[in-house]
Amino acid sequence: MTDVRTETKAKARLVAELAPRLSNWDRWRPDDGLGLLNLVDERKRLEARDAIRGGLAISLGFELREGVPQPPGSGRINPQHLMTELPGDAPPDWDGPVFADDQLTMAVHAATHWDALSHCFHGGRMFGGIDAAEVTTKGAAHNDIVPAARRLVTRGVLADVAAHRGVEVLPPGHGIGAEELREVLDAQGVEVRPGDALLVRTGLLGATVRSGAWDEFTEHGNFFPNTPGIAADALPLLHELGVCAIACDNWAVEQLTGGAPLFPVHELALVYMGMLLGENFELDALAEACATTRRWEFFFAGQPLPIRGGVGGPVNPMAVL
Amino acid sequence: MTDVRTETKAKARLVAELAPRLSNWDRWRPDDGLGLLNLVDERKRLEARDAIRGGLAISLGFELREGVPQPPGSGRINPQHLMTELPGDAPPDWDGPVFADDQLTMAVHAATHWDALSHCFHGGRMFGGIDAAEVTTKGAAHNDIVPAARRLVTRGVLADVAAHRGVEVLPPGHGIGAEELREVLDAQGVEVRPGDALLVRTGLLGATVRSGAWDEFTEHGNFFPNTPGIAADALPLLHELGVCAIACDNWAVEQLTGGAPLFPVHELALVYMGMLLGENFELDALAEACATTRRWEFFFAGQPLPIRGGVGGPVNPMAVL
Amino acid sequence: MTDVRTETKAKARLVAELAPRLSNWDRWRPDDGLGLLNLVDERKRLEARDAIRGGLAISLGFELREGVPQPPGSGRINPQHLMTELPGDAPPDWDGPVFADDQLTMAVHAATHWDALSHCFHGGRMFGGIDAAEVTTKGAAHNDIVPAARRLVTRGVLADVAAHRGVEVLPPGHGIGAEELREVLDAQGVEVRPGDALLVRTGLLGATVRSGAWDEFTEHGNFFPNTPGIAADALPLLHELGVCAIACDNWAVEQLTGGAPLFPVHELALVYMGMLLGENFELDALAEACATTRRWEFFFAGQPLPIRGGVGGPVNPMAVL
Amino acid sequence: MTDVRTETKAKARLVAELAPRLSNWDRWRPDDGLGLLNLVDERKRLEARDAIRGGLAISLGFELREGVPQPPGSGRINPQHLMTELPGDAPPDWDGPVFADDQLTMAVHAATHWDALSHCFHGGRMFGGIDAAEVTTKGAAHNDIVPAARRLVTRGVLADVAAHRGVEVLPPGHGIGAEELREVLDAQGVEVRPGDALLVRTGLLGATVRSGAWDEFTEHGNFFPNTPGIAADALPLLHELGVCAIACDNWAVEQLTGGAPLFPVHELALVYMGMLLGENFELDALAEACATTRRWEFFFAGQPLPIRGGVGGPVNPMAVL
Repeated sequence: MTDVRTETKAKARLVAELAPRLSNWDRWRPDDGLGLLNLVDERKRLEARDAIRGGLAISLGFELREGVPQPPGSGRINPQHLMTELPGDAPPDWDGPVFADDQLTMAVHAATHWDALSHCFHGGRMFGGIDAAEVTTKGAAHNDIVPAARRLVTRGVLADVAAHRGVEVLPPGHGIGAEELREVLDAQGVEVRPGDALLVRTGLLGATVRSGAWDEFTEHGNFFPNTPGIAADALPLLHELGVCAIACDNWAVEQLTGGAPLFPVHELALVYMGMLLGENFELDALAEACATTRRWEFFFAGQPLPIRGGVGGPVNPMAVL
Repeated sequence: MTDVRTETKAKARLVAELAPRLSNWDRWRPDDGLGLLNLVDERKRLEARDAIRGGLAISLGFELREGVPQPPGSGRINPQHLMTELPGDAPPDWDGPVFADDQLTMAVHAATHWDALSHCFHGGRMFGGIDAAEVTTKGAAHNDIVPAARRLVTRGVLADVAAHRGVEVLPPGHGIGAEELREVLDAQGVEVRPGDALLVRTGLLGATVRSGAWDEFTEHGNFFPNTPGIAADALPLLHELGVCAIACDNWAVEQLTGGAPLFPVHELALVYMGMLLGENFELDALAEACATTRRWEFFFAGQPLPIRGGVGGPVNPMAVL
Repeated sequence: MTDVRTETKAKARLVAELAPRLSNWDRWRPDDGLGLLNLVDERKRLEARDAIRGGLAISLGFELREGVPQPPGSGRINPQHLMTELPGDAPPDWDGPVFADDQLTMAVHAATHWDALSHCFHGGRMFGGIDAAEVTTKGAAHNDIVPAARRLVTRGVLADVAAHRGVEVLPPGHGIGAEELREVLDAQGVEVRPGDALLVRTGLLGATVRSGAWDEFTEHGNFFPNTPGIAADALPLLHELGVCAIACDNWAVEQLTGGAPLFPVHELALVYMGMLLGENFELDALAEACATTRRWEFFFAGQPLPIRGGVGGPVNPMAVL
Repeated sequence: MTDVRTETKAKARLVAELAPRLSNWDRWRPDDGLGLLNLVDERKRLEARDAIRGGLAISLGFELREGVPQPPGSGRINPQHLMTELPGDAPPDWDGPVFADDQLTMAVHAATHWDALSHCFHGGRMFGGIDAAEVTTKGAAHNDIVPAARRLVTRGVLADVAAHRGVEVLPPGHGIGAEELREVLDAQGVEVRPGDALLVRTGLLGATVRSGAWDEFTEHGNFFPNTPGIAADALPLLHELGVCAIACDNWAVEQLTGGAPLFPVHELALVYMGMLLGENFELDALAEACATTRRWEFFFAGQPLPIRGGVGGPVNPMAVL
């Protein structure tokens, strides 16, 4: 209990210290809802275009199906796919057209998705200093996912941390800091530039799919996961590089250490930097293709569904190499 | 009543006549679920890349929100967005992290989506001759939307029929046939090549948004809509051109004439050709950009959500010019 | 606009005046969540038993089906019934058991339901003076529907106002006040006693079912309904009589006059009196049976589903005469 | 594997042998959808009335909440309760009425419910010989739950098998046969009469609630539960007694032995006898009250929600002693 309090206080100090340095609240129009996506413009997309060499397209979206990836009690339901019309509905003598139709229900933050800038709050505020009370049962009146849905096509870079360390998956709770991130990017020989989307591979999602051990991967009951991810001290580097969005093959982008639920990366990235977080991205096939071509950059079509008021958005991101 | 029977028989004859000419059942592996997406390969995506000139990205996805686009009684529910966590949930003395979370329910074929090859049946079969009984409450065991989710990035071409005719929206029930389609493409000076996605603009969705008259746009109750769209006689041209997918700014891609619900384009395109149909695409902004640049080709990232067993898939398609 | 403000102020005065007279905040344990259901005890149910004479049972629940009773834009969805398993799923050679299974989604306050004591707030409080902030996305931490689910079997009395006035349905916006209510009860020769559930018939639901004019019956868009119901000045009489719950064959129990949405009956009954409100009860068949037997009392099994945290509860109430 | 085939064949023989003896297909109008509820009439409800002595009401409905009672992978989702309106939505200067509203989604056969006569099929038929194909994505065109919703108020009898054997819960896989059932009823000194609803207590639900071991109680993944319940050889006794509906405090009414999923009781009771099955009934409090009063009969208000086309119905059954 003392530990939780100590950790919570340490986290609060860290956020208090970094927030002013990393804040983009006054950098653009406060209510355009774009945050760092302001760095993605037409010129940037020409850069993205030039990253296409062979034409290989790799989809990074986790298949939507029941049973994964949330275990029960997580408070987030898995995708549920129900049929509303079937060919078997037609009577024997029917000579009209025959269709099947379906319906999808899902927690927006299940499976592969972006957190919108209205997903996290700090000091009663969200990105741009907007009052948290702007998010009600009617959705987010500001900072919803729609601006990202209209804008998020840019150059993408993969930092394959697991491959760099020669492991299938990074250790539980491992934090990827600035130093390690820079080391991986240098070893890969890839440059990150303002407006890029950065994908960081921990190996976790693939390993979980192979083992089927979803319970250890995702939040449930009183258990809190212990997963590798981004450490808060990587954020100043991302700030400096101008990364517009970061996504990982894990549950929360940031490292989770199995103790108190602290989420400093969420608070700093979403609330102060205005940087989208992408979760449950499938990065194994992409990593393999990058390793083969020795190129870790690509065209990145990461536009989520345009949910009005959405504090996140499901997405099937596509990398084209 | 006689009219319906007469129309139904005429439609049946049309489908019976065209099906053998247009069928792709034996062209590829019958169970890869790709149909004409087999024409989309890496070389094709380099063509798509070369269509990017200025870097402008235009999202074609209709905003997901309640109340549109289905009226009640359509049997398809509109997107419903509910909040499962709010910043206001936190008690006054809470010093932990604060989040908002949400949930989405929608008819897969509401808003902007692709019909999968398992959406329509003819003679008890779907594309590749696969038994319609393969689609059950568990979803489509074959021909689901997943292959499209993994593949659908290609070159796109817009045929702006409404602009060509100088109208805001084509007349109710107007059928766009081979001749008119070729005329528009010629006038625009754009070539359609094998593996392209073809977007055809009727002006309907934009006009409906502006008028708010959703009841006239979409199916409901005993009313059957009377909307402009693709006529069956355009299909041989699409077959010849090698179009891999066709999408419109209307409810059903094909023309609906307010009488019997016939759907020959669905039967021929989905069941025999293996060609995806995209519905409720927002094409007005794209049309404007194409008119400005005098170029009607673009990079097209149209990958839907990968719903296992899905007989369709929601999508936020992105055109990059 | 002035009218709305004037009406709103008049309503506020009315509530301010009546609230102290009608309040039951200090009458029982403040957090038992029962309110006036405290009056329903074992002795009361013996009274209910003695009201059974012929054994006729009449169900008062509106059939759950799509399309009714909310029109689109109401913010409440109608019951949606989907099949999750069908006999047609079984393959031809299956010799195991064959089932059908289904799933239900509904706004809790659609169709026939009770409003829980946590459905309405006044001055930031709900019944018993409990803070409105106790109701979050996790549901109502106090005053949910569960206590009613465990208790609500009592003697019921029908006041058939429409029949008394010899009309199919009371006029739009008609308010049933204390005087009229007493007159109807007297004419019927039925006594209302402490702990009774009082059902009041306006004729509206039946008339709406027959006409199909749901749009005029229920809230939607900017339109606000104009429906007969209980007037606030009936509440002192109900207080005096000790009615534990009141239900009507209309949308909101209380009269709605098509102007400002005021809801004084909700505020007084739910927040101050702790009296459940039952809406969309089907009372026509019951009215007919009562008229035939010339007795307007019955055993009333009105227990809703026990939704933990529910601010209301669907119910299929049963009257046994 | 041989075992499964052997068991399946033995079950098939059992059903084939008992079906003709127990069938009620020709006993009443084949399409009234009532089955054995035809035995419940007004006279029967006077019998029910006379079973009320002290006025104690005991609700038998399992609380609707997330996380129980289905584990993931069961194909049935647990109740999900979401808030669609909250008092916190109101802006600070709001002087209008303030409400909370909610929405419920649940598998109809989760929690406490009745199986409708359209829930199970045998030889392609449901009760009355009606074609299984009458159940489609639109629901059950015959034998839905609505007739039970309008009729199911009758005399109830509890057979407390667990108490009779002096155990907290019957052993896994234990089958309650005719002999044991008769023994329990005799020991309790209670008579079962035509039209009665029979509740049979195994102790399972209460024990599961106390232990929290839902995974052992309910179906999930490849695991099949091993739970006490009614054995097929009890059905001729129920037939003879004229029981109109049977309900237990377990998952499937019938015994499940952890091997092949056979369900002879479902096939015989639902398909041939037309007898409703009630599952997940909470019987512990009722058992205690019956033991105290030494009377095991009561008034039983077991009317489910009237879902049109429903192959089952959620219910909060009420016993009044």
